[in-house]
Amino acid sequence: MSRTYRLVVACPDRVGIVAKVSNFLATYNGSITEANHHSDPVSGWFFMRHEICADSLPFDLEGLRTAFAPIAKEFGMEWKITDSAERKRVVLMASSQSHCLVDLLHRWHSGELHCDIPCVIANHEDLRGIVEWHGIPYFYVPVDKENKAKSFDRVAQLVSEHDADTIVLARYMQILPPSLCEEYAGRIINIHHSFLPSFVGAKPYHQAYERGVKLIGATCHYVTEELDAGPIIEQDIIRVSHRDSINDMVRLGKDCEKNALARGLRYHLEDRVLVHNNKTVVFS
Amino acid sequence: MSRTYRLVVACPDRVGIVAKVSNFLATYNGSITEANHHSDPVSGWFFMRHEICADSLPFDLEGLRTAFAPIAKEFGMEWKITDSAERKRVVLMASSQSHCLVDLLHRWHSGELHCDIPCVIANHEDLRGIVEWHGIPYFYVPVDKENKAKSFDRVAQLVSEHDADTIVLARYMQILPPSLCEEYAGRIINIHHSFLPSFVGAKPYHQAYERGVKLIGATCHYVTEELDAGPIIEQDIIRVSHRDSINDMVRLGKDCEKNALARGLRYHLEDRVLVHNNKTVVFS
Amino acid sequence: MSRTYRLVVACPDRVGIVAKVSNFLATYNGSITEANHHSDPVSGWFFMRHEICADSLPFDLEGLRTAFAPIAKEFGMEWKITDSAERKRVVLMASSQSHCLVDLLHRWHSGELHCDIPCVIANHEDLRGIVEWHGIPYFYVPVDKENKAKSFDRVAQLVSEHDADTIVLARYMQILPPSLCEEYAGRIINIHHSFLPSFVGAKPYHQAYERGVKLIGATCHYVTEELDAGPIIEQDIIRVSHRDSINDMVRLGKDCEKNALARGLRYHLEDRVLVHNNKTVVFS
Amino acid sequence: MSRTYRLVVACPDRVGIVAKVSNFLATYNGSITEANHHSDPVSGWFFMRHEICADSLPFDLEGLRTAFAPIAKEFGMEWKITDSAERKRVVLMASSQSHCLVDLLHRWHSGELHCDIPCVIANHEDLRGIVEWHGIPYFYVPVDKENKAKSFDRVAQLVSEHDADTIVLARYMQILPPSLCEEYAGRIINIHHSFLPSFVGAKPYHQAYERGVKLIGATCHYVTEELDAGPIIEQDIIRVSHRDSINDMVRLGKDCEKNALARGLRYHLEDRVLVHNNKTVVFS
Repeated sequence: MSRTYRLVVACPDRVGIVAKVSNFLATYNGSITEANHHSDPVSGWFFMRHEICADSLPFDLEGLRTAFAPIAKEFGMEWKITDSAERKRVVLMASSQSHCLVDLLHRWHSGELHCDIPCVIANHEDLRGIVEWHGIPYFYVPVDKENKAKSFDRVAQLVSEHDADTIVLARYMQILPPSLCEEYAGRIINIHHSFLPSFVGAKPYHQAYERGVKLIGATCHYVTEELDAGPIIEQDIIRVSHRDSINDMVRLGKDCEKNALARGLRYHLEDRVLVHNNKTVVFS
Repeated sequence: MSRTYRLVVACPDRVGIVAKVSNFLATYNGSITEANHHSDPVSGWFFMRHEICADSLPFDLEGLRTAFAPIAKEFGMEWKITDSAERKRVVLMASSQSHCLVDLLHRWHSGELHCDIPCVIANHEDLRGIVEWHGIPYFYVPVDKENKAKSFDRVAQLVSEHDADTIVLARYMQILPPSLCEEYAGRIINIHHSFLPSFVGAKPYHQAYERGVKLIGATCHYVTEELDAGPIIEQDIIRVSHRDSINDMVRLGKDCEKNALARGLRYHLEDRVLVHNNKTVVFS
Repeated sequence: MSRTYRLVVACPDRVGIVAKVSNFLATYNGSITEANHHSDPVSGWFFMRHEICADSLPFDLEGLRTAFAPIAKEFGMEWKITDSAERKRVVLMASSQSHCLVDLLHRWHSGELHCDIPCVIANHEDLRGIVEWHGIPYFYVPVDKENKAKSFDRVAQLVSEHDADTIVLARYMQILPPSLCEEYAGRIINIHHSFLPSFVGAKPYHQAYERGVKLIGATCHYVTEELDAGPIIEQDIIRVSHRDSINDMVRLGKDCEKNALARGLRYHLEDRVLVHNNKTVVFS
Repeated sequence: MSRTYRLVVACPDRVGIVAKVSNFLATYNGSITEANHHSDPVSGWFFMRHEICADSLPFDLEGLRTAFAPIAKEFGMEWKITDSAERKRVVLMASSQSHCLVDLLHRWHSGELHCDIPCVIANHEDLRGIVEWHGIPYFYVPVDKENKAKSFDRVAQLVSEHDADTIVLARYMQILPPSLCEEYAGRIINIHHSFLPSFVGAKPYHQAYERGVKLIGATCHYVTEELDAGPIIEQDIIRVSHRDSINDMVRLGKDCEKNALARGLRYHLEDRVLVHNNKTVVFS
């Protein structure tokens, strides 16, 4: 893939936004490889993402930002421009279950996920071996009822030291403190093992079994302070029946979890997810 | 399809049930066209359904029941034997939305649904034309806040007069009174326009839109007194995105509703659904 | 829905197309409700669709076309501008199977499909009743081996007399003559009852049963001279198993056929389908 | 999971099979945890699988086989009895692509796949590291046009030396010789990266892209001499659009391949797959 700049914009809708932006790009001979727009008639907001060949523009990243800033100001835009060559730094957090973590490690290792993984932080030792085989540092930060504050200070320190852009909770079975949620708002991705908003909280497969549903699922979402209530990025489901025990559901659900998390993270890494009013626009 | 008897059994699990039943059938030279078993290790219950060529047995329906009764008693079975040639009598109830009703009428008319439809009861007049075109009587029973009891007395009377085995709420937007729920327990089928247990109650597509889910669905379930909490027979989902307005969700969801209801009703008509502990075993 | 103009464009890709078009629209204060773009790096072509509030522009349909023509010429565009208020005229063709025809009739009758249906043409009499109930003329044009040419002359005459924009083969089990395929190229929609390119031609469910596939499907495509080889608009699948007979597959497949055809036709009616190199871009 | 015996039977259908078998089991007080039956009216064959608590029977595996043999003979059964405690020995074969191999290794390592993996054989060196990290011997057997016969002699020798019950081609991009296909008939599992019978042979994603399909898929099947024509065990699909390049299809398809292969292998390992007339009965 050739290097691209990604221009991502959200602003109140009005006539002339696309014209202004595409003129700007055309003036500098920018070659657009992908363009997406969305007008939300309910909120009155407009969302846009352009992917532009970096080589086609006479700017480096900072230069492009400087040149675009007046347009952003004129339209009251929330905006960012990123460079596909600057890989995001993603810290993975896990507990003892391996499926989501190993799935992400493999996708990264085989070149499918374009990011750096500066470290893995886990509250169990179980997954050290496979992580270190991938050449990634593994930090064991146990979390007990008594030491929670101290543990999460350590987590915050590690995340900061490793310059993380993004935190992924790959079946990390602890609730992050509000301070961390706030500091990395829109940049912490969780995989919840149910089809939200069904079965919030603990043991969703047990809840699903009890209720006798015929489909189970998984939800990839941004973490907010309220448990399992953040903006949904991606969901997946699989059919179950009376023959499936809770253990079967756990096993079947793992594939949903892996797929939903991998797709959601990919969208995030490629700056395809825009959050507004606790909902997402995903330019997939 | 040739005529079959359906032997449907639920009882506490123990060794020898299948042997006893299959011996019984083999003794009389019964030709089994389909057999399903399920042992639930959690509840300790056993579920079984046999479909047997009627011609292969030396019994009429009553004779078969009489011959089988001692086995049922020995094992403490909840059981029934039905005859595929005796079509169930299904009363459809609707409001003003047509999609589920018309879908069922067409499936019935084209021979896909093996049942009789003695009448349709609706609290609006909108659907009279298409129902009567199918040669089915249409009863308009309006439901107002002031006349609810009287209206449902009329509904109960109509259902009873038409010898209904089963009532299908094909997007009937009223809540049935507890007395009716009780009288037809396990025989009233509703289609709820969400993926239960998400979005119970009114306006589920609006709720789904607000929450920003990426999949919407529909749930076919038996009606119990508690709203949208009865045993789930079948569910279906469809993918949505930020581009879909509430109206789009309503439109897309209709196809889920039709499919889940038609499949669920079919299972019911063929005596494939066994209810235990507010959950279903569906021998599909 | 408020009235919109739809500007649909395909042309060789180059810098400045979007800028030019969006400038044009912004100059006249056009309010864009939906915009889609696609650059195909393999063919080097660019595809674009805009939906614009008709009221926001100072043009009627012809005026808009005239104003846009110079841009289209400059970029060598294949293009059209349509008016959402001008409903397409869709002639439905059927044989004796009812499911696709009735499904489309119901969607049309309930306001889900925005088109006119000037008539139905069938080579059997079976479906006259339900068609005429909908107030639509029904023409019976039998097709025998001996009279094919004459029959299709009659079909062509009927289609022409009813000013059809589009022909939908709703399980019409005859092969149209090349002349008709050519005259209505890109405007004849067929539903094939398999997941193409698997099981081309006759009796695809029998072929699927023989091969022992675990999923069956349906394909909505534009008709070209070569049988079942035209551009694919939409596909749908459903899971099957060893328990499903050919009859079960036929029954289950019907739901795929209905859904794929209805979605594909909807995309066509809203001018969301662009054909290039025997493939489609569908701005769904 | 407690230890079970699996009794798997295929024979011409007739009255009394189930009675005979279930009597046999009941006589010895066998506790059945799962039972599946299938009568195929087209071929006239009957298929049956029982899973029985090993502890509930007064037999060891050989004793059970000896006791059951007369029944098998009486009904002309193709049959086997296996012991869940005797894990199958599965040799994995791969080329340079990692996704299917790593997925199976992880499922095995985390206890999801109940088998032994005595070795991996590959015609590239790329995957040695991850395989050896799992503690599994890795044999590099290059295959060139000139040395094919010799290479496959080596493969056959390795498979034999490692006492393989089953061979899994985890995206092994070579065609096995007929002798090997025959020796391990019904025990070589392949994953083909298309929805068979669409896109047989090389580069199916390229074929899919060319044809412009809207869904791509993967097929897990037993290998026979005829390429991609063996009995299908499992299939999976995913939706694609005009936005997806061949590379995108390759990436998206990988998840289908992994899931279809893992499910298919699991069915095989649990003796849930019965082959008859180049088709499978899968008691999933």
